[in-house]
Amino acid sequence: MNPILYAGEQREKNLSELVTFLSLPTISTLSEHRADVQRGAEWVAENLRAMGMENIAIMPTAEGRGQPLVYADWLHADDAPTILVYGHFDVQPVDPLNEWRTPPFEPTVIDDTIYARGASDMKAQTLAVMKALEALLKTNSLRVNVKVIVEGEEEVGSPNFASFLREHKELLKCDVALNTDSQMAGRDIPSIVYGLRGLCYFEIWVHGPAQDLHSGLFGGSIHNPAQVLCDLISGMHDANGRVTLPNFYADVRALSDDERAELKRFPVTDESWANAAGVKELWGEKNFSVVERTGARPTLEVNGLYAGFIGEGSKTVLPAKAMAKISMRLVPNQRPEKIRQQLEAYLRAHAPNTVTWNVKQLASGEPVLLNRDSRFVRAASEALQETFGVAPVFQLLGWSVPITNSLNDELGIDVVVMGFGLADDGTHGPNEHFYLPNFYRGIESYIRFFENASSK
Amino acid sequence: MNPILYAGEQREKNLSELVTFLSLPTISTLSEHRADVQRGAEWVAENLRAMGMENIAIMPTAEGRGQPLVYADWLHADDAPTILVYGHFDVQPVDPLNEWRTPPFEPTVIDDTIYARGASDMKAQTLAVMKALEALLKTNSLRVNVKVIVEGEEEVGSPNFASFLREHKELLKCDVALNTDSQMAGRDIPSIVYGLRGLCYFEIWVHGPAQDLHSGLFGGSIHNPAQVLCDLISGMHDANGRVTLPNFYADVRALSDDERAELKRFPVTDESWANAAGVKELWGEKNFSVVERTGARPTLEVNGLYAGFIGEGSKTVLPAKAMAKISMRLVPNQRPEKIRQQLEAYLRAHAPNTVTWNVKQLASGEPVLLNRDSRFVRAASEALQETFGVAPVFQLLGWSVPITNSLNDELGIDVVVMGFGLADDGTHGPNEHFYLPNFYRGIESYIRFFENASSK
Repeated sequence: MNPILYAGEQREKNLSELVTFLSLPTISTLSEHRADVQRGAEWVAENLRAMGMENIAIMPTAEGRGQPLVYADWLHADDAPTILVYGHFDVQPVDPLNEWRTPPFEPTVIDDTIYARGASDMKAQTLAVMKALEALLKTNSLRVNVKVIVEGEEEVGSPNFASFLREHKELLKCDVALNTDSQMAGRDIPSIVYGLRGLCYFEIWVHGPAQDLHSGLFGGSIHNPAQVLCDLISGMHDANGRVTLPNFYADVRALSDDERAELKRFPVTDESWANAAGVKELWGEKNFSVVERTGARPTLEVNGLYAGFIGEGSKTVLPAKAMAKISMRLVPNQRPEKIRQQLEAYLRAHAPNTVTWNVKQLASGEPVLLNRDSRFVRAASEALQETFGVAPVFQLLGWSVPITNSLNDELGIDVVVMGFGLADDGTHGPNEHFYLPNFYRGIESYIRFFENASSK
Repeated sequence: MNPILYAGEQREKNLSELVTFLSLPTISTLSEHRADVQRGAEWVAENLRAMGMENIAIMPTAEGRGQPLVYADWLHADDAPTILVYGHFDVQPVDPLNEWRTPPFEPTVIDDTIYARGASDMKAQTLAVMKALEALLKTNSLRVNVKVIVEGEEEVGSPNFASFLREHKELLKCDVALNTDSQMAGRDIPSIVYGLRGLCYFEIWVHGPAQDLHSGLFGGSIHNPAQVLCDLISGMHDANGRVTLPNFYADVRALSDDERAELKRFPVTDESWANAAGVKELWGEKNFSVVERTGARPTLEVNGLYAGFIGEGSKTVLPAKAMAKISMRLVPNQRPEKIRQQLEAYLRAHAPNTVTWNVKQLASGEPVLLNRDSRFVRAASEALQETFGVAPVFQLLGWSVPITNSLNDELGIDVVVMGFGLADDGTHGPNEHFYLPNFYRGIESYIRFFENASSK
């Protein structure tokens, strides 16, 4: 039987598995969900076992202090290529819970869309590639060797993934990796990602008085650290939407004319993007399109702000300290170490003597630029064209998938990045969702990719 | 027996009562402490009863929805003046609790200082005036009529006090009010307050995208509401430390040369003030001394800031909204209604079209300027001079005591403001404390005030 037909017959079962998978609260960032993450690993392992994958193992990371990772393989295609498939089964926290219209771990299908935490990031895609392998295995059609790793701590920044790769180089030996944690250009326009932004994430504290003061008693005579923090943050962008950290743009790789032309294929207009975000008007760096701003240009965002009294009502406090979580998205060839130096140089230059400050780095990931022209990229491109009837857009992804770097760096192999989420899926926020037709087309695309990869 | 001698003999008992009073967690802003506030009212009522005050009543406010107030009187001085004494027994919340060196409701005496929430604001002072009345009553020396009100919701802004005064005008009829919620100029330099700053307290929300977004996906293309809020706050002061709201200073009463000279008597240097606050360096409006900045000039402070993710670790969120709690201290003749208009005009002028915003007013109080030259002010001035051996400084207080306005406005009477806290007592913050020698000198001063008030 043709594996595409097989997958078609399994739609109902596959959807029901997706619902089960999404109902597991596998929140890796919260220690109270540790057992749920373990259950997630067991569910994935069992699913891989049932379809005929072999050497299933739930592998601890960081000697058991990290979250587990599931490994499986099928290596009976002789000297055909070996493909390492990557996905993750952990998800983000759900706060603010009161903004969810349906419970985050009670997956709810409304029309063609399934709502649940992790629907788009990335259980639907992880399961899609698994169900593609199942279709190939059940129809005896798998003609490449496959190794699968499904990670359980991507949402905390994959802290143990690189060392895991280092420690298991022999086990994970392969010709190419397929990273399924990615998005499409639009509902009906697939994409292949050839660049991902890096990340630097900082917590900045500004310290003023020794303790919280009465604002009536001291107000007007002490430099309020919340005000100083606002001054500092406000100064981090200029009127053109550019980041003002010294030399921030010095190492940024310029886009070629070809790339800018390809990025124009993206079915995104200012209006559609504003609608997706729910804003009246866009903002950003002058002279760059929204696609360029979100993929090809580095950015600086405030992720959190805190100072003083934020409960209900009024408290007349002059806060002792103020905090901001700030992160930068980096593009080739920016380096996280340099960004930290630039941030500290900015703070040294602009923080007044009335306060002290310190910076804590919470995360770091290099930007990455992949090979756009390999047999495996062609295999993916043709699989997508065949499934969707349109050539995929070559895309620069806005966010970090540090594991792409790790696969690149630690195993020294190319990575094909092909996924089926959408920009407006609400990942990391309330009411995360996934467009179900692309769950099924995702399965088909992965089936065709594995088929094409063997024959070229 | 002389009432001063009597009070001297009662020191130990008075201190022990202060410890009991301070151990009651009468936090009026938190509904879970409602029963404690009620117990506080009962404790005050019983204390007043025991000393010989009459017509004791625990009176509900806002038909029982507010916090209770204790009333008592002693009206046997015939046609001598009637003095209405004001104090409050409620206290601020204790957060951040982990910064307290001793438990906030286990009063701890270290050397000459007692540590507890409410020690300075204002149970020591409330009890001092009560113990002064006790000394006068127990020695048959009270020669004025006295009415006492001890409020239970000053720390939530006395929302029901003005209407309480209106409803009980006949009961509260008097010649002058004594407000004991005040401070000294220094440990050994008493003061009489003739002006208090008003207050406007706002919560400002800036709304950007419809919901929290993934900062890697949308970062760089959407105006981050936390960044916009920082821009707005940053713009609220200029480089000279002046508030930039339109016409903010238009109605500010200028100080006379006499007043500026009198304020110079304040035993505060830039260095001592910086030490009290625990900062390296002061800040504020150019061309004004620290005493003027904190009493005679209007200010704008950030009391709280919130946006996005503020828990432990990193979450790459582009927040949907950001909030600041901001309050202005007003001086005569600024009006709260105008300040709100100025704030809204500022936001209309400076908020970009990429966001929406709204303002919620949480508190409001007029600034007040009192009569500096009445028989009761002289009675207070001489009482303080006799007790401390130095003439009191006439002072402009930095904060709001809305009840001073209410007494002024609703009862149409003068108010004498005389209290014994210190600027560095840590009111509203952790480790609040009170210098005990001024508890005893406060009692003596109040005794002498009541004596002087009858004879002039």
